[in-house]
Amino acid sequence: MAPLVLASASAARAALLRAAGVEFVVRPSGIDEAAFKQRYRAAGASAIDCATALAEAKALAVAAQIPESFVIGADQILVCGEEWFDKPANLEAAAAQLRHLCGREHSLATAACAIQGGLLLWRGTATPRLTMRRFGEGFLADYIAAEGEGALGSVGAYRVEGRGVQLFSRIDGDHFAILGLPLLELLAFLRGRGLLRE
Amino acid sequence: MAPLVLASASAARAALLRAAGVEFVVRPSGIDEAAFKQRYRAAGASAIDCATALAEAKALAVAAQIPESFVIGADQILVCGEEWFDKPANLEAAAAQLRHLCGREHSLATAACAIQGGLLLWRGTATPRLTMRRFGEGFLADYIAAEGEGALGSVGAYRVEGRGVQLFSRIDGDHFAILGLPLLELLAFLRGRGLLRE
Repeated sequence: MAPLVLASASAARAALLRAAGVEFVVRPSGIDEAAFKQRYRAAGASAIDCATALAEAKALAVAAQIPESFVIGADQILVCGEEWFDKPANLEAAAAQLRHLCGREHSLATAACAIQGGLLLWRGTATPRLTMRRFGEGFLADYIAAEGEGALGSVGAYRVEGRGVQLFSRIDGDHFAILGLPLLELLAFLRGRGLLRE
Repeated sequence: MAPLVLASASAARAALLRAAGVEFVVRPSGIDEAAFKQRYRAAGASAIDCATALAEAKALAVAAQIPESFVIGADQILVCGEEWFDKPANLEAAAAQLRHLCGREHSLATAACAIQGGLLLWRGTATPRLTMRRFGEGFLADYIAAEGEGALGSVGAYRVEGRGVQLFSRIDGDHFAILGLPLLELLAFLRGRGLLRE
């Protein structure tokens, strides 16, 4: 097992870390994330507290099997008004979600952590805010057709680094957090632990 | 000639626009940019005023040949203290530039415009600020070896969307402006002119 392990099944998150030149292996936690989030919602928790707790639960579940490794956990929840959104299950759900977000601001509660030997060594959070412009049904149909399965890989049904940027009138906050990780902070932690060259 | 023309030889800028789902053709202006910038520096102009003027000069030069097309001009100047930086000519120059930026804040004076039929129809600017951490010579050697020619495509000798993110301790400002274009504003202009679906 490599020293660095990403406890996430998200292809976007792995691509982000790989593009940054970080070497790691992927080992998804297998946690029932929907049930986890439902419990937190029912308890009245905030999205960022839920994402933080879920990132830690994922990392802990994987770290228990490989105590010598540094295990990165991460989670992201889209919040629009009172609603929380997760990755859409299919293209119809993606379109419905985008119709809901159209013309409104939403935030991306983004959390990550690092665990080794049962110890929580690092935790980072960010909550970028994005405003979707008022787009038409014709645009939406073109968008879904062009993105295809790519629209299913993120909590917002968009890749802001691709055609998804056409959905937005305003973007505030860290670009890498939008993509799924507070990356600058994570890289600083990895350097401090000798997992990346300083 | 397609309705939209990018008057820039920058591969990074073309890649950014292409990723966003915009169709265009590239037609570099052939302007002597180094001489242009030297005249502005000598006159005591600010970097953003120079980048704005150069973006317009590039677009005007190309638009004169194809008056029916919408021509996008763009330019970016890296400013660190009193110095202006442009794309490094080779890997040695890239390393020297990164040593200069190491441990310091710099800004990216970024300008773009759109011209049709001799009329300046849109202008956008942004000046994101980035702070490079104090990295060592070992890191720098690894970085240059890993990036290769990729380090020569931007004014900062880095691709922040790739391994270049490891250079930074802090990034403030629009991610797309860092990559070379005030993209959200440009997309809004293109929609307003019927060049992108609304």
